[in-house]
Amino acid sequence: MTTLAILGGTGHEGAGLALRWAKAGHTVLIGSRAAEKAQATAAEINARLGLTTVSGHDNLAAAQAAEVIVLTVPYSAHTATLESVRDAAQGKIFIDVTVPLVPPKVSRVQLPAAGSASQEAQNILGPAVKVVTAFQNISAEHLKDPDHAIDCDVLVCGDDKEAKALVIQLAAEAGMQGWDAGPLANAVVPEGLTSVLIALNQKYKVKSSGLRLTGLNA
Amino acid sequence: MTTLAILGGTGHEGAGLALRWAKAGHTVLIGSRAAEKAQATAAEINARLGLTTVSGHDNLAAAQAAEVIVLTVPYSAHTATLESVRDAAQGKIFIDVTVPLVPPKVSRVQLPAAGSASQEAQNILGPAVKVVTAFQNISAEHLKDPDHAIDCDVLVCGDDKEAKALVIQLAAEAGMQGWDAGPLANAVVPEGLTSVLIALNQKYKVKSSGLRLTGLNA
Repeated sequence: MTTLAILGGTGHEGAGLALRWAKAGHTVLIGSRAAEKAQATAAEINARLGLTTVSGHDNLAAAQAAEVIVLTVPYSAHTATLESVRDAAQGKIFIDVTVPLVPPKVSRVQLPAAGSASQEAQNILGPAVKVVTAFQNISAEHLKDPDHAIDCDVLVCGDDKEAKALVIQLAAEAGMQGWDAGPLANAVVPEGLTSVLIALNQKYKVKSSGLRLTGLNA
Repeated sequence: MTTLAILGGTGHEGAGLALRWAKAGHTVLIGSRAAEKAQATAAEINARLGLTTVSGHDNLAAAQAAEVIVLTVPYSAHTATLESVRDAAQGKIFIDVTVPLVPPKVSRVQLPAAGSASQEAQNILGPAVKVVTAFQNISAEHLKDPDHAIDCDVLVCGDDKEAKALVIQLAAEAGMQGWDAGPLANAVVPEGLTSVLIALNQKYKVKSSGLRLTGLNA
């Protein structure tokens, strides 16, 4: 079992992942700018699951104590959060779930200069951190109900094979099928797909479109 | 029925689309740099389907005579082909199928400066041309057998709603489900997905991975 920090874990996406990983037996450290908010979210998840393995901390303390760090903040907080945990992340696997949405046009792909948020993360954290991109396309609505089957695959991009294998394992433990989708340079695809899925939700008047890969054998 | 020009229609992807659209009853003009090569491909398709509605031309003549233009050239020929048909394309729907692959690293997303090949096309052709991006993720292998069910959806991006609706109709006539995936700025997603699918093919040792959207009602 792994000790996971979920920075921005009080948000819908982060809390949903925390819930599923805690249920799977991992020790989960919820991180937030305000430790009290993180503690409240941790208490809710513990109460819901009948566990005591979820705890709340400020983002830095959570990152320092974790083996694997997961970033689920809004894009506007991406750079500042990365800079605040850079030292704590050295040598660790770092899963960036951030989507570079630029409100109000969130159904339109708007790329960062580095090509993707995950490549920005790699640039800020430095080469000793194993940055992996994943989980951007999963509906938070579906994550937060641990019994809801998730009809959406997880594209996993990164430059470290073992780190990607661990993320695919973590996806499976949270009820999702992950796939090795190539190098971190491909992160633009899962990140951009979130805007495409938002566009599809608006156009076809649904709440949680997703995608499944075909023609593959796990 | 529509008169469709398929520029680069002697290649696998273009010839596969030509075959399916000819079978659906459209008049198809195969375009190539060399008219004789286009005539040979047209003759093959006519013979296979028992039709006379497919003809071969140089790219410019095909573009001039068509109502809708489809571009299926390798990325290395993208700019030159666009410039050669710019005048002929004015006021028309222009479907760009080009994927900005940069060999030999074709499993790695490598973005053009404009963000995507389709946005480059719009910049070169000018605002009076209705550029739509589609069909990048469809296996040419599956297209060329008109009885093969294609287990891959078509993401359709563009800034003109009616043009996108026509492309979704053309996809249906060729045996594919198309979806309105937002503005042309989102073209990076289907274009980048081709590199992701190549990476998946290599990693999981398959030939034709694809994707299906979920949670939608057409």
